[in-house]
Amino acid sequence: MAAETSPAVETIDFSSGRRKAQVAMLLYPDCTLLDFAGPHTALVPYADIHLVWETLDPVITDSGVTVHPTMTFEQCPAELDVLFVPGGTGQTRAVLNQKALHFLTDRGAQAKYVTSVCTGALVLGAAGLLNGYRAGTHWSVRDLLPLVGATPVNERVVIDGNRITGGGITAGIDFGLTLLAKLVDEEAAQTSQLAMEYAPEPPFDAGLPEQAPPAVVERLTTMMAGPIGEITRALEDLRPGDTDRPIR
Amino acid sequence: MAAETSPAVETIDFSSGRRKAQVAMLLYPDCTLLDFAGPHTALVPYADIHLVWETLDPVITDSGVTVHPTMTFEQCPAELDVLFVPGGTGQTRAVLNQKALHFLTDRGAQAKYVTSVCTGALVLGAAGLLNGYRAGTHWSVRDLLPLVGATPVNERVVIDGNRITGGGITAGIDFGLTLLAKLVDEEAAQTSQLAMEYAPEPPFDAGLPEQAPPAVVERLTTMMAGPIGEITRALEDLRPGDTDRPIR
Repeated sequence: MAAETSPAVETIDFSSGRRKAQVAMLLYPDCTLLDFAGPHTALVPYADIHLVWETLDPVITDSGVTVHPTMTFEQCPAELDVLFVPGGTGQTRAVLNQKALHFLTDRGAQAKYVTSVCTGALVLGAAGLLNGYRAGTHWSVRDLLPLVGATPVNERVVIDGNRITGGGITAGIDFGLTLLAKLVDEEAAQTSQLAMEYAPEPPFDAGLPEQAPPAVVERLTTMMAGPIGEITRALEDLRPGDTDRPIR
Repeated sequence: MAAETSPAVETIDFSSGRRKAQVAMLLYPDCTLLDFAGPHTALVPYADIHLVWETLDPVITDSGVTVHPTMTFEQCPAELDVLFVPGGTGQTRAVLNQKALHFLTDRGAQAKYVTSVCTGALVLGAAGLLNGYRAGTHWSVRDLLPLVGATPVNERVVIDGNRITGGGITAGIDFGLTLLAKLVDEEAAQTSQLAMEYAPEPPFDAGLPEQAPPAVVERLTTMMAGPIGEITRALEDLRPGDTDRPIR
């Protein structure tokens, strides 16, 4: 079990005011805005959150919203409380970006929590950070987790040692509140939840493939076939055992 | 009842591919990222979404994330399918911004749907757009809605004629999916819901003041007293009947 090899994780009393949690979120081109907006909003009263990328040039997310990184890889603190990777249609380019993988591998070796939402798990995994761990991701790519050495789990937030991985997009809110309870305490998480008025009432019962009408699942599966083929090939190329694989 | 005076609203067949819905979201300084990230993500496969502000200079949201407007007030189409205002701690400055109120009043008079999430309802209301309507907003400022002539409703998404107003922050996701079902159809909304894996599992039962521990409600109420006092005074000054009120 991965849990046996995980570093010890202590609850840190950030609410004492001693210091804020240091959180780095990878902000790569065509990542999904809502993947990081959810946990960002939950955590930000208690954390210094850095949006990290190669340069400080604006990054266009996959819904077309342009966001500014706040730090480059080099500027990011070496010791992080949380390393976080969002998902997004830019996942394949992120997985093929050696600087990004190097950053993740380096910071991931020291971070208290190594985390992701949605297809961010595949990017974390490409950096070798989910090898031997149980993990969650977007439902459409759950079957790809073994390509990075992870055991797929069909749960909204999966905790294995200091790895915390969320399901697709909106799972980031549940993930963020879960992480906040660990980083600070339950009252902090409840305060963020109340501030965000997070008492969801989905208007339809279609948030999981087991629930949605078959025609909707089929429509979306067809729409995503291209990007899923792309990331599958990229991860197969990166698979441990490849002689020229520079990471891990 | 406001519903009697509301313009007729038809369902538009955007899924036919004829044209995408034209959506304008007000992107003001210190608005809340998640307020618009939720509906943006839900709507974007079916809509051209414009982030609109005075200039194209980057705007810092109230969690510190910097986002680019895509259009100025002048560049924004005159006829919109959706006019949307997010909430945020910058609400008071938005309410005092004559150009922003003028833009809202002008586009709101023609838009098929006039909408908000969170304290965005107070900004809409300051522009005279909720006068006589039932409306929702963040739980902490619901009592302020009568200052803009609206009747407060304790529901997550409130529909009154072509006004659709959501509760606090995360209500934007429920709002966005509800709006999408009206703009396109139920299958479109279900497709977005499945793409976003919106099958929420809040880790705590603290998303509403009726549910959260009293200490958490008190803590947050104290934290928000300053900004709430500020917006209250601004809305009292703008109240209909003021002789020098330029809008409405």
